[in-house]
Amino acid sequence: MIVALAGGVGGARLAVGLAALVPPEDLTIVVNTGDDFEHLGFSISPDLDTVMYTLAGEENPQTGWGRRDETWSFMAAVGELGGETWFRLGDRDIAVHALRTQALARGEPLSQITSRLAHALGVRHALVPMSETPVRTRVATTAGELAFQDYFVRQQCAPQVTGFRYAGSDGARVPPALRAVFERGAVDAVVLCPSNAYISIGPILAIAEIRRWLETRRFPLVAVSPIVGNDAVKGPAAKMMRELGLDVSALAVARHYGRLVDAWVIDERNAHERSAIEALGCRVAVADTLMTDRGRSAAIAAIALDLARRCQRKAA
Amino acid sequence: MIVALAGGVGGARLAVGLAALVPPEDLTIVVNTGDDFEHLGFSISPDLDTVMYTLAGEENPQTGWGRRDETWSFMAAVGELGGETWFRLGDRDIAVHALRTQALARGEPLSQITSRLAHALGVRHALVPMSETPVRTRVATTAGELAFQDYFVRQQCAPQVTGFRYAGSDGARVPPALRAVFERGAVDAVVLCPSNAYISIGPILAIAEIRRWLETRRFPLVAVSPIVGNDAVKGPAAKMMRELGLDVSALAVARHYGRLVDAWVIDERNAHERSAIEALGCRVAVADTLMTDRGRSAAIAAIALDLARRCQRKAA
Repeated sequence: MIVALAGGVGGARLAVGLAALVPPEDLTIVVNTGDDFEHLGFSISPDLDTVMYTLAGEENPQTGWGRRDETWSFMAAVGELGGETWFRLGDRDIAVHALRTQALARGEPLSQITSRLAHALGVRHALVPMSETPVRTRVATTAGELAFQDYFVRQQCAPQVTGFRYAGSDGARVPPALRAVFERGAVDAVVLCPSNAYISIGPILAIAEIRRWLETRRFPLVAVSPIVGNDAVKGPAAKMMRELGLDVSALAVARHYGRLVDAWVIDERNAHERSAIEALGCRVAVADTLMTDRGRSAAIAAIALDLARRCQRKAA
Repeated sequence: MIVALAGGVGGARLAVGLAALVPPEDLTIVVNTGDDFEHLGFSISPDLDTVMYTLAGEENPQTGWGRRDETWSFMAAVGELGGETWFRLGDRDIAVHALRTQALARGEPLSQITSRLAHALGVRHALVPMSETPVRTRVATTAGELAFQDYFVRQQCAPQVTGFRYAGSDGARVPPALRAVFERGAVDAVVLCPSNAYISIGPILAIAEIRRWLETRRFPLVAVSPIVGNDAVKGPAAKMMRELGLDVSALAVARHYGRLVDAWVIDERNAHERSAIEALGCRVAVADTLMTDRGRSAAIAAIALDLARRCQRKAA
C-alpha cells in the first residue's frame, strides 16, 4: 500500500502518476482540506476537487482549476444580481459543490461523499480527505490574519505572510478509511507530493493522528520537491518562503520537513543542492520534475516509488 | 394602493398587466410560497421566481418556468454524478437560488431577499412573499399525503387529490412590508390573480393574518377566473376540481371563494355562467381572459381595476 499526501495541482499531477503505476487497492491519496470554505452557500473543497478532476481526466487545462468543458452562466448571473464573483464557480463544477453541500447538510461524512463523487466520475483509486471535520488554514500576514481563500484568491496572495494556523486541526477527526490504512500496518511507503509545504502539506501534518502515525512509522517517506530552480512550479510557495526569510530552494524545503522525510526527489535544476540535502540524512534522486503531461507524472511517480523501495527506514 | 395575490404563471401574467397600469408605489404583489422547497441544498421559491422573472422580462417562454437564455450544464453534471434531476434547475436560475439560500442561512428575511433580488433584476413594483416563515402545501391523495413538488413535478400531478394542507400556516409570520400595507388602510382594492385556488391562492388565504385582514376589509376584492371554458389555462386545477367532485367551471371557483370575492372577471367562454355567479352576490365582467401577451395582460388588469372601482364593498 502506497499513501500519497497531496494538495492541489502539484499533488494532483503526482497522484495521476502514482495511479498509473499502482493498482486501485494499493494506493490511498490523502488530500488537504485546509483550503475548504463555504461560499455562496456551497461547501467547496478546492484541493479534493482538483485531485478528483485530474484523476478523472476532468481537469480544466486552461484554468488549472475547475472542470473541463465548463460554462459560466451561473457566475455571470450572480454578478448581474450583485453577488460575489471573486471566486469563480463554473456551472459543471457547481454540481459537485451542490451535491457535497447537500450531503454534508444531511450528515454524511466528507470521506463518504468524496468516495461517492469520485466513483461517479470514474476515479478508481481511493481519494480521502485528511479530515472529516473542518480544518481551516488561516494565513497570518502583516495585514492581519486572513481566511485562506481571502488571502489566496480574493487578495491574490498579495499580503506579506508571517505564519500559518490550521484552525480545527486539534480536534480533527481522521476518516475511518484512512485510520484503517494506518492500523492495518500494510503501508509500504508514504509519498509527499510536490505541494506547498505551508498551505497544502502543512494542514495534513498538523493533524495529530496523522503526524503521530508518520513519526512512529516503519516505512519510508519519500518527498518530491515542489521547488524547481529557485521558484515554485505553481502557486505562492516561493513568495511565502521569501517572506518568511528563507531561501527559495529544495534544501530549504528539505530543512522545513527535517527528519520526517527519508528521501527526496529534487529537480535537476537543484542538483547542486544534492549533497546538502544528503547531509540532512536523506537519500536524493535528481530528475526533471516538471510534470507537463501524464507520461511525465508517471515517470516522477516511478522515481519516487523506486527511491522508496531502496530506502531503509532510519531508526526513529 | 392595489394589492394582488398571485401564484405562478397566471399570477405573473396578471401582475405584469397590473404593473403596466399602476405606478410602483401603488402596487404590492403578494406571492404564494406554499410550493417553496429545499432541493439539492437550494431554497427554491418557484412562484416568487416566476413572478419576479416575468416582471423583469426574464421569464422563459419555452418552458413556462425558469429564466430565458438558460443553459443546463449544472443539471447535466448532476445527472452524471448520480444526483436527482427530476426538478430542472438552469444555470442562470441557480444564481437566484444560491443567493437566496445563502441569505436565508445568514438570517436575512425572505421578504428582504426577494426585494433585493427583484430590484437587481430591474423589477420596480413591490414583490412580497406571503410569509417570512416556511408554509408548505401538502397534497392529500389516494396514495397518501405528498410534499407539493413531489406531487407536482416528480409525479406530474398523477395521484388523485383528496385535499390540501398548508403546513406552517398557523404560525406564519407576515412580512413587515405587507403588514404595513394592511395597517396603513390605504388599499383601494385587492386583485385575486387567475391562479389555482388550492395550491396558489389557498396557501395565501390560509395565513390567519391575511385572511382576517381580507374578511374585515372596507375595499373590494376582484378575482380573475382561472377557468376558461371547462379547463384551466395551465396546471392541474381542472384535474383537481374533478377529483374533488366539482364541476370545472367559473361558477365552481366562485362558489369556492364564496363571499370573499366581490366581483369576478370571467372568460367569455364562461359567459353562460354569469347570472349564476351574480346570484352569489358578485358583480361579473366577461372578457377574453387569455393573457397571451403583455398587451392582453394589461387589458385584463384594466378590466379588473375598472370593476374594482365600480364595486361598493358589500356589508361584511
